[in-house]
Amino acid sequence: MMNKPQIGVVGMAVMGKNLALNIESRGYKVAIYNRTGAKTEKVVTDHPSLKLVPSYTVEDFVDSLETPRRIIMMVKAGAPTDGLIKQLLPHLSQGDVLIDGGNTFFEDTVRRNATLDESGINFIGMGVSGGEKGALEGPSLMPGGQVEAYKLVEPILNKIAAKAEDGTPCVSYIGPNGAGHYVKMVHNGIEYGDMELIAESYNLLRNVLGLEVNEIAKIFSDWNKGELDSYLMSITAEILTREDDLDTQKPIVDVILDRAGNKGTGKWSSQSALELGVPQSLITESVYARYISALKDERVVASEVLNGPAFDKTTLDKKALIEKIREALYFSKIMSYAQGFEQMRVASDHYDWDLKYDELAMIWREGCIIRARFLQKITDAYRKDKKLSNLMLDPYFKEITDKYQAAVREVASLAIQAGVAVPAFTAAITYFDQYRSANLPANIIQAQRDYFGAHTYERTDREGMFHYEWYHEE
Amino acid sequence: MMNKPQIGVVGMAVMGKNLALNIESRGYKVAIYNRTGAKTEKVVTDHPSLKLVPSYTVEDFVDSLETPRRIIMMVKAGAPTDGLIKQLLPHLSQGDVLIDGGNTFFEDTVRRNATLDESGINFIGMGVSGGEKGALEGPSLMPGGQVEAYKLVEPILNKIAAKAEDGTPCVSYIGPNGAGHYVKMVHNGIEYGDMELIAESYNLLRNVLGLEVNEIAKIFSDWNKGELDSYLMSITAEILTREDDLDTQKPIVDVILDRAGNKGTGKWSSQSALELGVPQSLITESVYARYISALKDERVVASEVLNGPAFDKTTLDKKALIEKIREALYFSKIMSYAQGFEQMRVASDHYDWDLKYDELAMIWREGCIIRARFLQKITDAYRKDKKLSNLMLDPYFKEITDKYQAAVREVASLAIQAGVAVPAFTAAITYFDQYRSANLPANIIQAQRDYFGAHTYERTDREGMFHYEWYHEE
Repeated sequence: MMNKPQIGVVGMAVMGKNLALNIESRGYKVAIYNRTGAKTEKVVTDHPSLKLVPSYTVEDFVDSLETPRRIIMMVKAGAPTDGLIKQLLPHLSQGDVLIDGGNTFFEDTVRRNATLDESGINFIGMGVSGGEKGALEGPSLMPGGQVEAYKLVEPILNKIAAKAEDGTPCVSYIGPNGAGHYVKMVHNGIEYGDMELIAESYNLLRNVLGLEVNEIAKIFSDWNKGELDSYLMSITAEILTREDDLDTQKPIVDVILDRAGNKGTGKWSSQSALELGVPQSLITESVYARYISALKDERVVASEVLNGPAFDKTTLDKKALIEKIREALYFSKIMSYAQGFEQMRVASDHYDWDLKYDELAMIWREGCIIRARFLQKITDAYRKDKKLSNLMLDPYFKEITDKYQAAVREVASLAIQAGVAVPAFTAAITYFDQYRSANLPANIIQAQRDYFGAHTYERTDREGMFHYEWYHEE
Repeated sequence: MMNKPQIGVVGMAVMGKNLALNIESRGYKVAIYNRTGAKTEKVVTDHPSLKLVPSYTVEDFVDSLETPRRIIMMVKAGAPTDGLIKQLLPHLSQGDVLIDGGNTFFEDTVRRNATLDESGINFIGMGVSGGEKGALEGPSLMPGGQVEAYKLVEPILNKIAAKAEDGTPCVSYIGPNGAGHYVKMVHNGIEYGDMELIAESYNLLRNVLGLEVNEIAKIFSDWNKGELDSYLMSITAEILTREDDLDTQKPIVDVILDRAGNKGTGKWSSQSALELGVPQSLITESVYARYISALKDERVVASEVLNGPAFDKTTLDKKALIEKIREALYFSKIMSYAQGFEQMRVASDHYDWDLKYDELAMIWREGCIIRARFLQKITDAYRKDKKLSNLMLDPYFKEITDKYQAAVREVASLAIQAGVAVPAFTAAITYFDQYRSANLPANIIQAQRDYFGAHTYERTDREGMFHYEWYHEE
C-alpha cells in the first residue's frame, strides 16, 4: 500500500478532531478513529475534501498507518486511556510511537511509559495547551518520553505547533517519561494563578474603586498593551464588553454565577508542590479560591451573619490606585511564575528530567492559555543563566520588585482594610518577603518541635544537630 | 495459663515504651516485644518491679497474650508496619484486635482494615498525640476501626488517656477504618497552623515592635492566662526564658537555626484538603512556611539582592499593638480551626465516617499538642449544634470575629507594609472575607473558562448550565 497516513488520531471529540484537522492542514494524510463510528463519519462528511482516512475498528486504524506508526490519543485521562492502550497494543509493532495528548496525571504517564517500553513501544505523554482553538490553529505542545520517539514526530509537531514572534515553533522535547505532562500540569497551575490575579484585580476595581464593567474593560484593554500583554488579559477585556445573550441587557459577567469549576490539574500541581517541598502558595490559594467560590449557598448565609469592616471608599484616589493595581498584578504574576519555575526545578532534580527552563518559557510564548509578552523576559532570564535559582534574582525581575513592591503592599493592605479578599496578591507579597528574609521565625517552630517531640535543631553558630534538655532545667 | 497480659505493645522506641509504662501504671499486665531484643530487655531491667512480660519472638509474644488479643503496634509508619502485620498475622486468631498507634497515612489504614477484616482480625488505626510525655502520662487518643473492636479496648484506653478538667477521658470512638488516623492528621495540620501563628506573632513583636526575647516571654506568659491559654503558648513562653546550653549566654532561640523540619502529616492534611475540595489555606501556608524556612542558603543570598520596603518603626504604639497582635492571633486561630473542622466534615461525608465534631473537640482538650482552653468553646459550639456548617457561625465565635477583625486587619496590613511575612495571619483574614462574601469574582474565572474551553457557566437568575458564543459575536 503506497501513501499511507503518516499519523493517526484517536478520539474525535473537539480537541482530537481539531488536532487532526490542524495536522491535515500542514500537508499530512491523517488516519482517524473514534470509539463510536458516527463521530468519525461526521468528521469525514463535514470535511469531504481533506486527506482524512477513517477507520471503524482499532485493527483497521492501526493497519492503515505508515510504520513506524505515530498515534496521538486524544481521549479522557485515566481509565479510558488505559482501556485504549490495551486495545491498541496487540496491533502495534516494536518502534511504534504512542502519544497521549490528554490531561493525564504525570505519574500515570511515568507508569505507562515504563510498561510499554518493555514491549518496545515508545510512549510520549504530551501536554497540549490552547483549548479548542489552539488545537486547530496551533497549540503549545509539551512532549515527554523517549527522545528517539520524539525525533520520529518532531517534524509534524514543529509544523502544527503555534509559532512565536521570532518564528520558533512552540514545541520542544521536554524530557523523559512524565516530564511533558508534569510541565503541562504546572502550566495549568500557573493558569489558575493568572486567572485568579485578574479576577482579584477586577474585584478591587469593581468593589473597592466602584468602577463599572465597561470602565474595567477599557482598563484591562489598556493594560494589555503594556507589560501585562497576555491572552488571558485580552480575553477578559473582551469578556467585559459582552452583553448577556439572554434578555437582561446586563453585562454577561453580571449574570454569570460566581462559582468556578476546575478539572483537577491545578489541584495536582499544588499536591505535587506539597509532596516535593516547594512553597507554591499563589497557585494553591488560587485553587482554594475556586473551592470557596463553589460554596455559594454557605457564603450567602454567612454574608448575613458575619459583619465586615467599616471602610470609607469615598476618599480613594482612583486614578493612582488603578495604576497601583496594575503594578501589583504584574509583581504578583512574577511571584507566581517564580514559584512555578521553582516547582519545575525541584521536580526536574527529583525525577531526573533535566528540564530546560529557557525552552519551557519559550514554548509558552504562543499557543497556550498563559501566553504572554513577559514569557520572553523569562526566556531571556534562563537563557542568560540556565542555573538561575529563582526568577526574581534575574536583574530584570529584581528591578520590577524594586519598582512595584510599594504598590502591591498598598493594594494588599487596602484590600484587607476594605474587607475584599485578595488571596493571590497577599500570597505574592508574602512569598517575596519570606524569600528575601535571611531570618524567619522558624527558629521558634523548631524550638517547639524539639520541646515536645525531641526533634532536635541546627544552630546558627556551629554544625550538627542539637537537643535541649527542656524538662531538666528551670 | 492464668493471668496472662491483657494487652501487648510492639515497638520499644520511646513512644511504645512510654505507652506500655502508662498502661502498666493503670493496673494492667503488659506484654512487650521489639524487633531487636536488647531494647525489650533494657525496658525490663530498667523497670524490674513492673508487670511487664517480655517476649523475644513474635510467636511467643502473641502466645503470651490473653484472648481475644489486644496488640498495640508502635512502629514506623509505612513498610515497617506492613512488615510487622505480616509477621503477626499467622499467629493471630479471629476476633483479635490489632491497633496501629503510629503516624500512619489514613489510606493505608483503610486498606489494612479491609484486608485484615477478611481474616477476621480487627484493625484499629489510632492517632496518639502528646509526644513522649503524653504517651507516658496520658495522651489524647483517636481510635478508628470496627466499633466492636473498640469496645474490647475501651476500658484500657479510657484509663490511659489524658483527662479533661471535667474528668472525661480524652479518647472516643472516632469512626470506621481510617477515621482515627484521618482525624489525627488534621490535628497535626492544625498544630502546624498554631505553631506558625505563634511564630508570626513572635516575629512581629521582635522585628516590627523591636522587643527583646525576655519581654516576649512575659507577653506570651500573660496571653497564656487568657483565652489563648494553650500548651503551645505555654511552652513557647517557657522556651523564650531559656538560655543557650552551650557557651554563648544568648537566649536559646537566638542560636537555633530558622529551618523548620516536618514529618509529613501537615503536608498530607493539605493534600487531602486539596483532594476533597476544602479551602484549607492557613494550614497549607504553614506547611509552605516550613518549606521556605528550609531554603536558608537561598534566602541569605536573596536577602542581599532583593530590597525590602522603607518602613518607619519609631512611631508605632507598642502597647496598643501588642494587644492587637493578641487579638489577631486568637482570630486567626479560630479561622484555622474553622478550616480544619470543615475539612473533617467534608471527609466524614466523603468516606462515610459519621464523625462527631463535639467529641473531637472534647478529646483534644487535654493530652494532645493542640490542647487549649478554647477547645471547650468548640466542644460547646458543636454540642449546641451538631450540624453547624462552619465554626465561625456559632454565636461565641461570631462575636469574636466582630470584636477582633479590626485588629487582624491592622496587624496584617502593618506586617505587609513593614515587609514582615505573616502568611497565616493573612490567610486567616482572607478566608474570613471570602467566606462572608455573598459574591466573589469567580464569575470572571468561569467566564474565562467558558471562553477558552467552553466549560459552561451557571447564571444568577435561572437554573441550568449555559455557554456563550464568544467567537461568533462582536
